[in-house]
Amino acid sequence: MGKALIIGAGGVASVVVHKCVQNSDVFEEICIASRTVSKCDALKEKLDGGKTKIHTAQVDADNTEEVIELIKAFGPEVVINVALPYQDLTIMDACLATGVHYVDTANYEPPETAKFEYKWQWAYKEKFEKAGLTALLGSGFDPGVTGVFTAHAQKHEFDEIHYIDIVDANAGDHGYHFATNFNPEINIREITANGRYWKEGEWVETAPLEKKEVYNLPEIGPKDIYLLYHEELESLAKNIKGLKQIRFWMTFSEKYLTHLKVLENVGMTSIEPIEFEGQMIQPIHFLKAVLPDPASLGPRTKGKTNIGCIIRGLKDGKEKTYYVYNVCDHEECYNEVGSQAISYTTGVPAMIGAMLVMNGEWRKPGVWNVEDFNPDPFMDALNKWGLPWQESHNPELLDLELDAKELSR
Amino acid sequence: MGKALIIGAGGVASVVVHKCVQNSDVFEEICIASRTVSKCDALKEKLDGGKTKIHTAQVDADNTEEVIELIKAFGPEVVINVALPYQDLTIMDACLATGVHYVDTANYEPPETAKFEYKWQWAYKEKFEKAGLTALLGSGFDPGVTGVFTAHAQKHEFDEIHYIDIVDANAGDHGYHFATNFNPEINIREITANGRYWKEGEWVETAPLEKKEVYNLPEIGPKDIYLLYHEELESLAKNIKGLKQIRFWMTFSEKYLTHLKVLENVGMTSIEPIEFEGQMIQPIHFLKAVLPDPASLGPRTKGKTNIGCIIRGLKDGKEKTYYVYNVCDHEECYNEVGSQAISYTTGVPAMIGAMLVMNGEWRKPGVWNVEDFNPDPFMDALNKWGLPWQESHNPELLDLELDAKELSR
Repeated sequence: MGKALIIGAGGVASVVVHKCVQNSDVFEEICIASRTVSKCDALKEKLDGGKTKIHTAQVDADNTEEVIELIKAFGPEVVINVALPYQDLTIMDACLATGVHYVDTANYEPPETAKFEYKWQWAYKEKFEKAGLTALLGSGFDPGVTGVFTAHAQKHEFDEIHYIDIVDANAGDHGYHFATNFNPEINIREITANGRYWKEGEWVETAPLEKKEVYNLPEIGPKDIYLLYHEELESLAKNIKGLKQIRFWMTFSEKYLTHLKVLENVGMTSIEPIEFEGQMIQPIHFLKAVLPDPASLGPRTKGKTNIGCIIRGLKDGKEKTYYVYNVCDHEECYNEVGSQAISYTTGVPAMIGAMLVMNGEWRKPGVWNVEDFNPDPFMDALNKWGLPWQESHNPELLDLELDAKELSR
Repeated sequence: MGKALIIGAGGVASVVVHKCVQNSDVFEEICIASRTVSKCDALKEKLDGGKTKIHTAQVDADNTEEVIELIKAFGPEVVINVALPYQDLTIMDACLATGVHYVDTANYEPPETAKFEYKWQWAYKEKFEKAGLTALLGSGFDPGVTGVFTAHAQKHEFDEIHYIDIVDANAGDHGYHFATNFNPEINIREITANGRYWKEGEWVETAPLEKKEVYNLPEIGPKDIYLLYHEELESLAKNIKGLKQIRFWMTFSEKYLTHLKVLENVGMTSIEPIEFEGQMIQPIHFLKAVLPDPASLGPRTKGKTNIGCIIRGLKDGKEKTYYVYNVCDHEECYNEVGSQAISYTTGVPAMIGAMLVMNGEWRKPGVWNVEDFNPDPFMDALNKWGLPWQESHNPELLDLELDAKELSR
């Protein structure tokens, strides 16, 4: 059908490339571009020889002019942005300048302070409308599939959705006492940031990891889940009419939290350099060198992820509950595409979003979140491309009311 | 009265020197000697001007010839060895060669593997007998005062001692999440070594930290105590006739253990070098650089230590219990001698042991542990020199029988 430019060559990009190559009827030609072209070449070398023609290119995605040149040279219908969130706006600018559609998986962050807000990208709405181009934001799993799940529930299960709890569980076990999938600084930010949820039109803040529940997840079992802020809350609170409350929960094991806390306590996660044998070293850099290489985790991670939406609302005047979720197995992902489920669950929906933009099913001028589109073709594609969903009409429910005493702690 | 040579210039040595200077009727002249003479000079500068004449000297205590020369030059009656445990034998050899009495606070350890056994030093018994010299081993707190407490109980409270539980509690709080008083390697060895206690003539091994109790310590309150091996168990099991069981317990807070365990888990306590930016670095060395300087702990440590012996046995044909202990306040110690209670409780008994050898009350040819002598002058001296003891005839008791199931775990 056409050409896609994939910017990025990390774990998620690798999954996107694998999936595009599997889906060669749609992705006849792709170009993999990143700052480090050798990573792109390695992917090409691994996957070359099928029906999809693979190109590679060097590009600095911080530089709009470079991206424009690359787009002009390759001529794609869509750019799939799986680079860094700091680069969303420069790439959107390049798409506007060249008349190409845009898909990403994570919202723009200013380089200095991560805000997890859509305002910078939503501000491009008029520009994309005028250009007759589609920008599809947040087409990963969460954000992404969680919004599609919600739109599916809205369309087929409810007249009105009142409550949503998104639960993101990773029960993967890499066999190490402690390891991080990515930057320990980001892990620490996750557990030390305030929680936040939306209720009756207001945002409610909670202390870091203050609100903990135990939820019994299908195929995973009972896990500690903690209330966090997550970026799809912003778009779903805006887009789901009649909504009364939406919250996001993520699993952290007690062991993981203890390890991270101790490392923070003793100063090993600090970015403040200390003197060591005459040189200045940031403790967090030394910690990274001591911890297992994140790239080593993939082949040894066992277990599953389960991410889904627990929804309550009205259907035909009656209260109703509904739970729609995907279970993904780390080992199966690794065997299929050489990445574990964390990357897999983000990369597959990015390919699907790009496919729906390319085949026209999800094409309308402007800047959109996934829940703005018809969920049906996306839900079908999830089943076809490796992220089959399951549903329950009688799920275990989380308390709707948080304990007020805990909130004021 | 005479002259003492003090070998060592660390925290314990500093307390010994302070106490000798306070006790100038006995210690008319002292010489402080260590590998780093500047440390000795600093002590001299701080304490000079009183009745005790202070000398300093540079000495490598690994080298018997150097120690012999120093002893000959200074001419002391006794050598107080508060250097490293690896150096006990070279210093004992030098005392034999020069006809000088010997006092230490910790048993000899071969440099490669710490065994906590007296056999190497006990093997010197005949040599010291023939030379007419006294070698007093382990005259710190534990070993040391714990043996004197036992001998006191034997002499004044019991006809026969059957059970001894030594409890060593440090409730000091330095206000840091985690810090070590000394080498983290030694701290780790402490909590990862098997426990061991003596029962009916046999040594019984326990898994590391397997046996935990909570004991309500006078002036400190209830604390987690863990069964460990400690060197005075060997001499007391041999020297207390009729003994059925002796155990040693030490406090560790859950927080301390968690921090040490996490640091071990992630590899930060490893001595195996890792590559970091082109150079090889032992993680434990970097950890030491990140953790608070042990020297900074003294002035900020608040709280108390409590070390004592809980004893059961027979008096006049009846079962009897007795608890004798010392409570020591970290801040008071620091104000008095510039060291916290850990060093204070070891240094004061070293001075007392040396005093009793010098004044002849504890002088008999051979190699001896503290419980081999009349405890009365030592017990009086503890009250006089800063470690007053207290007693209870109705103490809380620890279970005599360890849970067999736990032992086989």
